[in-house]
Amino acid sequence: MKIALDAMGGDNGSKAAVHGAVWAARDFGITIQLVGQPDTIKAELAEHNIKDLDLPIIPAKEVIEMDDHPAAAVKSKKDSSMVVALRSVKQGNSDAFVTAGNSGGALAAALFGLGRIKHIKRPALGTIFPTESEYGHCFLLDVGANTNVRPEYLFQFALMGSYYADKVLNISSPRVALLSTGEEEEKGSILIQEVAPMLKQSALNFVGNVEGKDIPTGVADVVVTDGFTGNVYIKGAEGVAWIIQRMLEREIKARPTAVLGALLARGAIKAFRTKVDYREFGGGPLLGVNGVVIIAHGRSDPYAIRHAIRVAKQAAENKIVDAIKSGLKDCAPMNGK
Amino acid sequence: MKIALDAMGGDNGSKAAVHGAVWAARDFGITIQLVGQPDTIKAELAEHNIKDLDLPIIPAKEVIEMDDHPAAAVKSKKDSSMVVALRSVKQGNSDAFVTAGNSGGALAAALFGLGRIKHIKRPALGTIFPTESEYGHCFLLDVGANTNVRPEYLFQFALMGSYYADKVLNISSPRVALLSTGEEEEKGSILIQEVAPMLKQSALNFVGNVEGKDIPTGVADVVVTDGFTGNVYIKGAEGVAWIIQRMLEREIKARPTAVLGALLARGAIKAFRTKVDYREFGGGPLLGVNGVVIIAHGRSDPYAIRHAIRVAKQAAENKIVDAIKSGLKDCAPMNGK
Repeated sequence: MKIALDAMGGDNGSKAAVHGAVWAARDFGITIQLVGQPDTIKAELAEHNIKDLDLPIIPAKEVIEMDDHPAAAVKSKKDSSMVVALRSVKQGNSDAFVTAGNSGGALAAALFGLGRIKHIKRPALGTIFPTESEYGHCFLLDVGANTNVRPEYLFQFALMGSYYADKVLNISSPRVALLSTGEEEEKGSILIQEVAPMLKQSALNFVGNVEGKDIPTGVADVVVTDGFTGNVYIKGAEGVAWIIQRMLEREIKARPTAVLGALLARGAIKAFRTKVDYREFGGGPLLGVNGVVIIAHGRSDPYAIRHAIRVAKQAAENKIVDAIKSGLKDCAPMNGK
Repeated sequence: MKIALDAMGGDNGSKAAVHGAVWAARDFGITIQLVGQPDTIKAELAEHNIKDLDLPIIPAKEVIEMDDHPAAAVKSKKDSSMVVALRSVKQGNSDAFVTAGNSGGALAAALFGLGRIKHIKRPALGTIFPTESEYGHCFLLDVGANTNVRPEYLFQFALMGSYYADKVLNISSPRVALLSTGEEEEKGSILIQEVAPMLKQSALNFVGNVEGKDIPTGVADVVVTDGFTGNVYIKGAEGVAWIIQRMLEREIKARPTAVLGALLARGAIKAFRTKVDYREFGGGPLLGVNGVVIIAHGRSDPYAIRHAIRVAKQAAENKIVDAIKSGLKDCAPMNGK
């Protein structure tokens, strides 16, 4: 198992990437190919004990910066860490690609370098999201790859999400739902009203439409939406979690006994924070391209990088690309269209 | 000031509606017209001390139920509390209408009974949302009236929201933003990319595009989106607040010292809950119809009804309909189109 890691991307740059790679190589016993500028990578590697670890460097001179225009950067920076890493995946020298860099750039580079799975119209970016289901999370897609969609794209997102939940998240017969403004079939946008019947007739375990407030209760294992709505939803969750914490802190600080109370509850608060840690949720797969691509949160620290590498390993081991291909074959309405 | 209240609607029915009306009549010294089945209303009124309060009954035999099909119910139930109350507003016998009933029904009844303000293409449902701004909240619209929109609708939502924030929420020169997937102009859907330039060229105080995570930080006073995305956003916030509370409770209950800590922090938790109480945020105006219409949360209890009546009173006193009309005149690009 060889994972090609973009050693240059992310808000925390090479320091976080290399540290996360060392951690993952040790914990999972796999090869992590560090793709990027050799001098920078070597300097970071010198900070760690890497005895017995397999951390080869794949040289790439350029970097797609966080503020680069995605498509333009991918075209002009042929020797960037992203483009080089994806070439390695394409050539079969790497089993998966992980990056915390410019996510639009990663999407463009993956489309350009790997291409789409045959019959897949658009790749989708997924993420797990905390719920009260027995699994503790659901899989939500698309969260940002496609801001303008058609019904058949959403249908394919449902199919890809279902196979990902089954093969990689070990959720058997995952319950698939459409994110809408009400459970009733007549509610929601024209788009939703066109997709729902397609899902109903499919072999997927479609459980109907769900509202934004139902996702955390665990009513579905795979929640399907367009990339605009999905992006607003997960960023909204981030914002709401932030303001809840902020407002609660303010009320606590205004009361000395409450400050003491918070101190006593510290262990519980810490345990809770671990469970909703973005670092556990940030590494999301880009499904629909011809290879395993994991796009981690731009803010990723070493722990988040390690986690994204683990997700990549699981996706590669469970042959998610082949699973989607066979799923397309079994799903008559979309086959060959 | 006379407010026509749908005394039959909402999950908590006449009990909550009449109780809220009594409360509001006493606190605000205004007339609340209770619209609905007289026997039911009288039975509820008998539970309260209504001496010196002005709570006339406007009889209406039928009720638009929570699960009725909105448009069909409005057409067939001509003597329903919603239709009768809106007729009273239309005829100038009431200054505003408040309901916690079937919100789709309220929208259809308002469109049918009052019509749209001239030149307004679609009415929009707004709500205030807690933020860290100096005002403590922003105004978010549309949150559900229009699941399929065009650029000019969003432009008008911005205009109506801006006037509502100014006239009713007392936010001068409100900062207007578009909800998108990034601040950058090239991000977001085709829709967003068409609306942003229109807003830039307008007299509104347009501050650009904002992400879901930025709303709670208070970067804008009026956040404009389509009714599908807005509905998913606010329901998502409800769901996230729920799961945070649930997960935190579970961690606390697993630790005896944390349980004690939570007990000590009880006052702070209670104060926090009051601040994010849906009952303070639930009553949202339907802007763009020819009259003041406030649609309260279906789960409204008496306190929420009282609050919705207060919002209706403020909107009527500050002549929001006239403000929108004059705003349309001043906004050349939309005038007469």
